[in-house]
Amino acid sequence: MTLDENWFSEPHQDIIGFSLRIREKLHEEQTPFQKIEIYDTVGFGKLMVIDGCVMLTDRDNFIYHEMMAHPVLFAHPAPKNVLIIGGGDCGTLREVLKHDCVRLATQVDIDERVTRLAEQYFPQLCDSNDDPRARLRFDDGIAHVKNAEPGSVDVIIVDSTDPVGPAEGLFSTAFYRDCLRALGRDGLLVQQSESPLLHADPIIRPMHDSLRAAGFADIRTIHFPQASYPSGWWTATIAAKDGRVGFHREQAAEALAFQTEYYNAAIHRAAGATPEFLRRKLQG
Amino acid sequence: MTLDENWFSEPHQDIIGFSLRIREKLHEEQTPFQKIEIYDTVGFGKLMVIDGCVMLTDRDNFIYHEMMAHPVLFAHPAPKNVLIIGGGDCGTLREVLKHDCVRLATQVDIDERVTRLAEQYFPQLCDSNDDPRARLRFDDGIAHVKNAEPGSVDVIIVDSTDPVGPAEGLFSTAFYRDCLRALGRDGLLVQQSESPLLHADPIIRPMHDSLRAAGFADIRTIHFPQASYPSGWWTATIAAKDGRVGFHREQAAEALAFQTEYYNAAIHRAAGATPEFLRRKLQG
Repeated sequence: MTLDENWFSEPHQDIIGFSLRIREKLHEEQTPFQKIEIYDTVGFGKLMVIDGCVMLTDRDNFIYHEMMAHPVLFAHPAPKNVLIIGGGDCGTLREVLKHDCVRLATQVDIDERVTRLAEQYFPQLCDSNDDPRARLRFDDGIAHVKNAEPGSVDVIIVDSTDPVGPAEGLFSTAFYRDCLRALGRDGLLVQQSESPLLHADPIIRPMHDSLRAAGFADIRTIHFPQASYPSGWWTATIAAKDGRVGFHREQAAEALAFQTEYYNAAIHRAAGATPEFLRRKLQG
Repeated sequence: MTLDENWFSEPHQDIIGFSLRIREKLHEEQTPFQKIEIYDTVGFGKLMVIDGCVMLTDRDNFIYHEMMAHPVLFAHPAPKNVLIIGGGDCGTLREVLKHDCVRLATQVDIDERVTRLAEQYFPQLCDSNDDPRARLRFDDGIAHVKNAEPGSVDVIIVDSTDPVGPAEGLFSTAFYRDCLRALGRDGLLVQQSESPLLHADPIIRPMHDSLRAAGFADIRTIHFPQASYPSGWWTATIAAKDGRVGFHREQAAEALAFQTEYYNAAIHRAAGATPEFLRRKLQG
């Protein structure tokens, strides 16, 4: 059957499509950087779309935001200073600030309008924007990292759109070198790295190569379901400045001091299990 | 944008849609049981659709078939006699027969046309149909289990369509009681149990209740990605006749004697990690 104008549809690579039935379009604007649309859907709550790609829905964003924040933060022995590049919807920031040990979380998104629309349409994601430990900056993430004091950051979270358009530079060896410089001892970087089923060759493997070329010592890709992203299966890639990507605060994760919907210590360990085809690709 | 007749689209619950771009429709027929369509897609190889629902594609069926077969077979201490209810595309049968310890694998699908079309359009799934240990029966799975000799089966795999139409009776306590009777000591049942995101309340929880009511001693839901099923995230529920659902042949899984694309021992352990929201629902 045809999915008509009663659906928001995102075709990907012109081979696979994801659709949500919509009640109405609530907002549309072209910012200096991208086109943002907000919809009210029948079954997934509010939906934010950037340049035709689903960014998040009320119903399933919890998985992505938790998996971008908690595995890397529980992998670090003592994360105090966290830098989020992108992440303008503030959902990752909210998860980061659930960690009491974090003293400063700086979010640098190039497009202030993403945050203003999130405040309006996804207020629950912005719950922690007034936390005294939160810093919201609207600026170029690449320049921000380049200018960061060397060794000053414990964890960098690259929560960006796909590697086309404004986010393209966030997938380069030059950017990763700047990240490495900004990270302190035991420093970790995590970046969303698309679908294992669709992007293992074009994105995940090249990202491993670029991170290694930039000097990162250990690189691990974790995976998790994400219904509203192409193929419903997504990854984040974690890179360690020195040593291995471990699970340093495993006990804290076991005795979780805050509420989550997807993440727990067992899920953390599970997310690192590599499917056979991906293991072979990343070895090859 | 609209996804027109160049796409096969499956809307689910009238809230979420999955689409594949098609080159052409290769076949369509109404059997006594259901309507079967076969398409050639642009990016996912061949596609089989039953009653409007995606059954399988060339590109991603490996995950489903491996996860329906290997976790339950490596959980059993010595699976010799395996019964597959449904599974007419023969992909699960092929995975089951990769286990040398299996001496007999009986597949009972009500609709012979599914198998004949799989032989024609998905020949690689039917690789093992001529294995002397394989028995293909085209019959009512519910009656087959009812008439099975008590204690004769080691593992029952319920690889059915959704719990509407011909497969509805496969989700009932009466059917599970017959399964329990047919199973021998250490016997295990596994059944596909839909999406954690969409079906936790309507299917997964009631299935746990029904299996418990039928007398199964331990029940565990495992999860895995499945791009072409609604939400891209799927489950199978494993129930033990006695004792716990363990990982009895963990060493054999670690030293895997056959090739897989998704499954390995780490993936096996990972698939059992329960997301927080599902853990709370299954406890509650």
